Amino acid sequence: MITDRERAAFEAGIKLGALYHQWVGVPVSRESASSLEKAIENAHIQQPYMTDITVSLDRELMIPNSFGYSELTGLMLDVELTIRVNEASCHACIAREGDYPMMRIEWMDEDTEVSNP
Amino acid sequence: MITDRERAAFEAGIKLGALYHQWVGVPVSRESASSLEKAIENAHIQQPYMTDITVSLDRELMIPNSFGYSELTGLMLDVELTIRVNEASCHACIAREGDYPMMRIEWMDEDTEVSNP
Amino acid sequence: MITDRERAAFEAGIKLGALYHQWVGVPVSRESASSLEKAIENAHIQQPYMTDITVSLDRELMIPNSFGYSELTGLMLDVELTIRVNEASCHACIAREGDYPMMRIEWMDEDTEVSNP
Amino acid sequence: MITDRERAAFEAGIKLGALYHQWVGVPVSRESASSLEKAIENAHIQQPYMTDITVSLDRELMIPNSFGYSELTGLMLDVELTIRVNEASCHACIAREGDYPMMRIEWMDEDTEVSNP
Repeated sequence: MITDRERAAFEAGIKLGALYHQWVGVPVSRESASSLEKAIENAHIQQPYMTDITVSLDRELMIPNSFGYSELTGLMLDVELTIRVNEASCHACIAREGDYPMMRIEWMDEDTEVSNP
Repeated sequence: MITDRERAAFEAGIKLGALYHQWVGVPVSRESASSLEKAIENAHIQQPYMTDITVSLDRELMIPNSFGYSELTGLMLDVELTIRVNEASCHACIAREGDYPMMRIEWMDEDTEVSNP
Repeated sequence: MITDRERAAFEAGIKLGALYHQWVGVPVSRESASSLEKAIENAHIQQPYMTDITVSLDRELMIPNSFGYSELTGLMLDVELTIRVNEASCHACIAREGDYPMMRIEWMDEDTEVSNP
Repeated sequence: MITDRERAAFEAGIKLGALYHQWVGVPVSRESASSLEKAIENAHIQQPYMTDITVSLDRELMIPNSFGYSELTGLMLDVELTIRVNEASCHACIAREGDYPMMRIEWMDEDTEVSNP
């Protein structure tokens, strides 16, 4: 048997993996960063079970190349999202840990009250 | 607290989401399909916690455009993979369900024997 | 010898090929389409030699899947851009031709006046 | 009027831009590099006007992360390709120039002999 918490964890993983590999490589600079953050949020909030997403790109890492822009890398991504499957919620993130863009579950919750009013 | 099963489900989701959004769009035909299957397997087997992956692309959907090839779409993907986090295993897949490339957990397992010899 | 017109044509091709393979696969719907159009324009206008870009996504093709959104495909892209290398300009586009997202040069121009004052 | 040489330059640009943004991000290591090189060649040789392509990935840049692999970056790409449009050929490449993965036309040729035997 697969629990709702396990399904929520699975769905959270799908969203983070998808987001990472979809957007890495986009030309970006400090000027265009906020437009890109908004577009990423607007794109992925539509996916199933997603109830919340916040995307923040690290401007410090946007070192301009000789043409004045850089490309989105995994290390620039600071993403937090919440998935809900029935009563179970999974809050997960991508955040830099040293030189690795680590994806992890921050917390999980089961809102048992809701179903027993 | 987050269980090993939940972490395994999370990692399985990451891999499926990543694979999907990385490879969709690659030029492919019935002739090049097996080279692409192998490359996808060889790329992702390296990722953390992945113990097994099989990729099979649906040749039926590779309808040649006017230049004789097509592009990899999500519906062509038939992927099965296994993730292991400590004693917990998660077996997950992408497979076509109607017009949607559905990702789901097939089964999870906890090998409690191993840790209690 | 390579002319400025040939270099402009080459750069225009790079931008169209890059744009196509970077953005195809993004979750999109009629609601999020304009945010995505803006983000694509803001990203690529930064690239070398690009002087103008307009992105318009075909809402008619955004047929919602069972979860209410679709994914950006090449056929949805209607992109016009202008590249300038020294005195030479290349105006190129992606636009649907039947079932193929065709990329082509619309016109090229050499502003010979400028260099002979 | 657009010459065959200009069209060949345009097509060469499309292929390089597409290749770059399609493959960047793929998990890769020194062990999987040759499988990936082959898959990239097999995928893109199918595209219109392409007569030749060689892909060589720089193993020196494949510094393993804490999980033992790395991700394909633009700087790892050493690609040479030939495009032919009627009698005109364009030979183009991506190769590292300092910290920038530069795409450029190496030479162009017009095989006028062929059409006048």
